[in-house]
Amino acid sequence: MVAEALRERVCRANVALAASGLVLETFGNVSGADHDAGLMAIKPSGVPYDTLTPPDIVLVAIESGDLVDSALRPSSDTPTHLELYRAFRCGGIVHTHSKYATAFAQARAPIRCLGTTHADYFRGDVPVTRPMTEAEVAGEYERHTGLVIVETIRTLGLSPSDVPAALVANHGPFVWADDPAHAVETARVLEYLAEVNLAARLINPDEPAPDRFLIDRHYLRKHGARAYYGQKPRAS
Amino acid sequence: MVAEALRERVCRANVALAASGLVLETFGNVSGADHDAGLMAIKPSGVPYDTLTPPDIVLVAIESGDLVDSALRPSSDTPTHLELYRAFRCGGIVHTHSKYATAFAQARAPIRCLGTTHADYFRGDVPVTRPMTEAEVAGEYERHTGLVIVETIRTLGLSPSDVPAALVANHGPFVWADDPAHAVETARVLEYLAEVNLAARLINPDEPAPDRFLIDRHYLRKHGARAYYGQKPRAS
Amino acid sequence: MVAEALRERVCRANVALAASGLVLETFGNVSGADHDAGLMAIKPSGVPYDTLTPPDIVLVAIESGDLVDSALRPSSDTPTHLELYRAFRCGGIVHTHSKYATAFAQARAPIRCLGTTHADYFRGDVPVTRPMTEAEVAGEYERHTGLVIVETIRTLGLSPSDVPAALVANHGPFVWADDPAHAVETARVLEYLAEVNLAARLINPDEPAPDRFLIDRHYLRKHGARAYYGQKPRAS
Amino acid sequence: MVAEALRERVCRANVALAASGLVLETFGNVSGADHDAGLMAIKPSGVPYDTLTPPDIVLVAIESGDLVDSALRPSSDTPTHLELYRAFRCGGIVHTHSKYATAFAQARAPIRCLGTTHADYFRGDVPVTRPMTEAEVAGEYERHTGLVIVETIRTLGLSPSDVPAALVANHGPFVWADDPAHAVETARVLEYLAEVNLAARLINPDEPAPDRFLIDRHYLRKHGARAYYGQKPRAS
Repeated sequence: MVAEALRERVCRANVALAASGLVLETFGNVSGADHDAGLMAIKPSGVPYDTLTPPDIVLVAIESGDLVDSALRPSSDTPTHLELYRAFRCGGIVHTHSKYATAFAQARAPIRCLGTTHADYFRGDVPVTRPMTEAEVAGEYERHTGLVIVETIRTLGLSPSDVPAALVANHGPFVWADDPAHAVETARVLEYLAEVNLAARLINPDEPAPDRFLIDRHYLRKHGARAYYGQKPRAS
Repeated sequence: MVAEALRERVCRANVALAASGLVLETFGNVSGADHDAGLMAIKPSGVPYDTLTPPDIVLVAIESGDLVDSALRPSSDTPTHLELYRAFRCGGIVHTHSKYATAFAQARAPIRCLGTTHADYFRGDVPVTRPMTEAEVAGEYERHTGLVIVETIRTLGLSPSDVPAALVANHGPFVWADDPAHAVETARVLEYLAEVNLAARLINPDEPAPDRFLIDRHYLRKHGARAYYGQKPRAS
Repeated sequence: MVAEALRERVCRANVALAASGLVLETFGNVSGADHDAGLMAIKPSGVPYDTLTPPDIVLVAIESGDLVDSALRPSSDTPTHLELYRAFRCGGIVHTHSKYATAFAQARAPIRCLGTTHADYFRGDVPVTRPMTEAEVAGEYERHTGLVIVETIRTLGLSPSDVPAALVANHGPFVWADDPAHAVETARVLEYLAEVNLAARLINPDEPAPDRFLIDRHYLRKHGARAYYGQKPRAS
Repeated sequence: MVAEALRERVCRANVALAASGLVLETFGNVSGADHDAGLMAIKPSGVPYDTLTPPDIVLVAIESGDLVDSALRPSSDTPTHLELYRAFRCGGIVHTHSKYATAFAQARAPIRCLGTTHADYFRGDVPVTRPMTEAEVAGEYERHTGLVIVETIRTLGLSPSDVPAALVANHGPFVWADDPAHAVETARVLEYLAEVNLAARLINPDEPAPDRFLIDRHYLRKHGARAYYGQKPRAS
């Protein structure tokens, strides 16, 4: 039951990702996790989005990495997702090769927080990892991709829920959230932020950052105990 | 009756805004005012555009800021809109995070008047506000956002009907007009002007501005007593 | 009969222009001419494209500029079109505010011939006019817009059929062809060329121009007596 | 039978190319080859994509260049395709004037390998040819276009299957693959790579290239005997 609900949500989020225009060919994938059940569900490798149905979604045990009751191969990025679930205990992860976020990853430049829309989703710059070493790439490459993301967030002293994304150098963005649908929304916003950021740099290379108090105001307007954006949850 | 007609027009303008591609997720909102009735109608906060119906539109008394006969929370930007209605007595306001206008806001650069299309809508550069102070942000932040727009237009000695938009530094554009539908049209044109402006800068960083007489000719061709663009109003 | 056929073709070309995405709001217009009948047909001013029908198209006598059997006001750009028909004896004219061509007009930079696609349509750079004088703008502004285009083509010693477009400084592109449909096609290609040109400049500011013999080869592959592109006209 | 199957595949790939948004007007073409039958099938010259049916596809003998059982003229680029089939023995070729790849061709700059998506398709930079000489352009121009591509790949010591594309200077991209459909996919990816590449340059002009071991890892993850991307071929 838990597994089927998770597959259903992950399938729907993958379809939403494809509809968002963020994916090129079959690149990109969404996964979701149920930490109580110890399960991750993820897109199968190289399968077109338009034929994807919930039974195609591959189940993997988060701790062991073993396949659970699945016929298809999981996304080749599966070990990356697993490391992020283990470290961040998030509920959904998206990986894309979306144009502008990928351009920042290729330029090895963080997506700087230049405005209030950025601050509504990320409480500061979206960082870029260091390049991976030859040993990391030669061995368990995809697992080390996850580890270098975790290292980046921790080295910079960031909270993974305050800054729920990172750019893998010369590769592309990984985004996480409390569930797969929110991770897709955050990936869409990240691509928008990257595109606006590049335009702002071209207009003014000095790109004046907003004051810290403005970033915090916007972030806290939407997140946490004193959020006042949107409709109040109904009291039943 | 007045209230229902206003809600209807504001709802339609919000749907038009969403269809224009200027909004990201649920960011962006349109309001409209009936100054005789002392009422403003505005989009509810965080409600998706595709389910919006006229009864969802929130009514607010312009002078007091009190909610009138409304179940939903108004847009969190409501105090900004109220300050603009009080100062400019316009009939419609649009706020978006549209890409290129937001990039100019993040770069803290005005959208310079470089051509006749700009002059058809704005009689000069579209200005950018100063950054807001910590006290302004910490307190009634959204109200101060409106006040800093009014301050910008007044300090520059501009007529709010000649230059019906401003960019809030590190935030995005606010646009006003005589009614909500025209405000949406002006917001669409502003985004086009920002995109063309950036391209013109990249082609020629010296961006030669048109002569003042060309700007005035175009502005007055569409506005005021001697306008000759479009069809003559029918004499009944 | 001649008039109705012309109205029909011009109406269809205006609808094609709107579908091309080159026009902003009601900006932009297509006209066509029948020089034997001495008639030009043009879009009415400020009328939305989606409701346009052949009877709305306005007929104007090319020589006198008088309206012929028409209820609506013609496009405010009518005097510009008339000057171009008088000087170039072309069969169709398009004016747009398409983004990239307008950006070059605002930057007062010609669209340089950098490749074979450009040479397939234009045998050299697409020029930009000088800025108009205060006297030209204050008086018959739209007529002088046409005259400054004609002056530009003649001063540069260009053939208007070899280089069937010009950018009006700080305004936008005018494009002409043997008929309205081809003028719309040429306007679409011009916008593509402008966009590619800007990207090429950003990649390599030295933008190496192709050799003259390559330009001529491509231009003559599609135009003139020895053209060999496309299917041969059927011998009946 | 062989001929009809080839025409069918080439027709379908041309329709897919048009749907991809990579072609401007009637520019661009896809061909396919059956080397056992000694046949190439290619789009007819100047025929719109939306009316294309398999019998319109033109058959050409690869060795002699003679037309086989075809009523329409083949694409004017036919001699280019023939030279590539003779030299590379590939199964499908695409030529487009897609915007960003064409901009790199006009700037005479290679599309540098800056990331893993690039490495998934091309094991290194996509090169640009030298400009063609006056003698090459004056004579069998289209044939020499093919020869200069072959010269570029060979002079750089590249394997045409490792780097299955080249940019013709001041012209545009040619892409090849094992069959027409894959050539269209590769052309779509090339355009994406060119666009991302330009954005990365604008963000960071030093554009740090990925390490060789990362490029090889990604290329070999999808190609060759140890590929592990996608689903395993079914054992029958």
